[in-house]
Amino acid sequence: MGTTGKQLFTTLEADGTLTVAIEDVTFPDPTGNKVLVKMEAAPINPSDLAILTGAADLENAEYSPGKYVANMPEPFNTGSKARHGQKLPAGNEGAGTVVATGDSDMAKALMGQRVACVPGNAYSQYCIADAAMCLPLGDHTAEDGASAFVNPMTALGFVENAKMDGQKAIIHTAAASNLGQMLIRICEEDGIDLVNIVRKAEHVDMLKGLGATHVVNSSDDDFKAQLRNAIDATGAFYGFDPIGGGQTVDTVFKAMEQVAVSRMSEYSRYGSNQAKRMFIYGRLDLGPTILTPSYGFGWTLSGWLLTPFLANAGRETITRMRQRVLGSLTTTFASSYKKRVNLEQMLTKEAVTDYRQVKTGEKYLVTPWS
Amino acid sequence: MGTTGKQLFTTLEADGTLTVAIEDVTFPDPTGNKVLVKMEAAPINPSDLAILTGAADLENAEYSPGKYVANMPEPFNTGSKARHGQKLPAGNEGAGTVVATGDSDMAKALMGQRVACVPGNAYSQYCIADAAMCLPLGDHTAEDGASAFVNPMTALGFVENAKMDGQKAIIHTAAASNLGQMLIRICEEDGIDLVNIVRKAEHVDMLKGLGATHVVNSSDDDFKAQLRNAIDATGAFYGFDPIGGGQTVDTVFKAMEQVAVSRMSEYSRYGSNQAKRMFIYGRLDLGPTILTPSYGFGWTLSGWLLTPFLANAGRETITRMRQRVLGSLTTTFASSYKKRVNLEQMLTKEAVTDYRQVKTGEKYLVTPWS
Repeated sequence: MGTTGKQLFTTLEADGTLTVAIEDVTFPDPTGNKVLVKMEAAPINPSDLAILTGAADLENAEYSPGKYVANMPEPFNTGSKARHGQKLPAGNEGAGTVVATGDSDMAKALMGQRVACVPGNAYSQYCIADAAMCLPLGDHTAEDGASAFVNPMTALGFVENAKMDGQKAIIHTAAASNLGQMLIRICEEDGIDLVNIVRKAEHVDMLKGLGATHVVNSSDDDFKAQLRNAIDATGAFYGFDPIGGGQTVDTVFKAMEQVAVSRMSEYSRYGSNQAKRMFIYGRLDLGPTILTPSYGFGWTLSGWLLTPFLANAGRETITRMRQRVLGSLTTTFASSYKKRVNLEQMLTKEAVTDYRQVKTGEKYLVTPWS
Repeated sequence: MGTTGKQLFTTLEADGTLTVAIEDVTFPDPTGNKVLVKMEAAPINPSDLAILTGAADLENAEYSPGKYVANMPEPFNTGSKARHGQKLPAGNEGAGTVVATGDSDMAKALMGQRVACVPGNAYSQYCIADAAMCLPLGDHTAEDGASAFVNPMTALGFVENAKMDGQKAIIHTAAASNLGQMLIRICEEDGIDLVNIVRKAEHVDMLKGLGATHVVNSSDDDFKAQLRNAIDATGAFYGFDPIGGGQTVDTVFKAMEQVAVSRMSEYSRYGSNQAKRMFIYGRLDLGPTILTPSYGFGWTLSGWLLTPFLANAGRETITRMRQRVLGSLTTTFASSYKKRVNLEQMLTKEAVTDYRQVKTGEKYLVTPWS
């Protein structure tokens, strides 16, 4: 039995050879609480690129129909030692129609429905998904629901996390992203002040058009003063950064400390007592994070990842968050796409070298049956 | 009225001129809960050097009796903007004899007693101190009690912090320091496993002589393997670093993650779920902290400072910690000194260029009346 379809796999060999290719796969009939989803749409998110392309040399790769072979440079190849020789699926999330189910009532109730799901192999014509993690989309299209998990739950997660930590304001870097736009709408709904840091004047205009109050442009000469003013106005000593490498976090910590020191009545050799907190949730820049000793000892920097956050938040919070996403799927949580590609098209040089740049507003959508 | 004596001051001008000099000062008669302490001994701790010398060019400074004038290079001068033009006292802690008191019962009870105190201007012949922060030393000498606060309370603070966070093992870098030796004895008493990282073979021997079980040498070719083995043996995913700059913390996070990954049954593109936590509590290296993207997102790095820790811990915990220090002042919490200098001697080129190097086991003690 089983169902046959095409699926993408990515394999990194110990010698640094990265092979990404489409293969024919037979999917087993789902059992228990599992369902078989015929996938109709799956986004290429930055979090998918780590495994899909990583830091591979895509300019000089060999491209053939449904396949490319590229070299992974050092130190990234050695840094990925743990996956050497393993053939891995890719694609965190997507949407499609349930075409077969296991025996459980929860699974059977989904038969024939369009759902958003998080199978981990979404770049595929079929996926086996857990019924408990499927979000029935009702009358929404697969494209509406394809990005219903990663970005919406991450943006909501930031606000949940900030509230848990007693914060009333957030700083967000690279804020013109799809996720950044969602965060603007969530913060407005929830009464959280938001400082948006972007890199281009056109993004300032775009975010202000979405209703953002505080948008600062890191390309402006007076960027640091803009940032200090926004921190002072909002009291945002807490923020999220998807860039990771370089001095973005360092620049934010410095501005936070300068605002805190300007509020002190006397000098302290150890800096301010203001707690400063930043989270790195992505690696748009794969270079090292640089932290200078210029903001005392009252700072904390953490990595932030959706899965452990949700595991800590618990099922009740997750259900509440997912219902909120479903209720505003085409408004607060809407995603937009630059281009639609099928599995073969997503492995052409033109496509790969374009989407790996992760340009703002240029997200790709994989439509495996087109 | 008042009492006259010599005190050290440090002044940084906006143009980068650092002046450290002894001046005659009249100390007011103590009131309320204050006491006047005739200071007999004060250590030069790394935490004092930030304000005493910072990154100043001490090789080319002008030295005269009781004074030196040095240039503070960039970016450190600009980074210290907040203190420009201010004449600051120095010396966090010390010990001496109470020679006058305010009216409060607590203050009057200390009259004539030898106490350890934390006045912030310990490089002085007299200090005004808060009676509540004075630790009566009984029959101990001033030298026994001079370092009763900063190092003992910091080392105890690490263990308190680890216990609050549910940890049973700690990693400590630059572990051959006075503080590191105290930490070895505290951890042994409290049943906490400790991984000591040192930079010299002679320090491995010294710490093993003190009873340390896990001592790894960062100068050894197989340092990283030693570190992984020690983390695996102890389960230490939590640690403290006084170096700050460079890749010490990065190296520790990498080793922690490699141990965690080696315990996983299958590959995860996001790394392990093992929480990894490090604290930077000093800046022996004033260069930037470098964090590479090689241990996923399950890590947190914070600055750590004694004062905010104690403020959070509360008076009951502080009292318990201080009694423990007093009870073991010449054993668990003993400090050793390379050299004793008076206020004038501590400002000679020979002394300044020596103690600013913060060599292991070469701490200076200031004895203002010698």
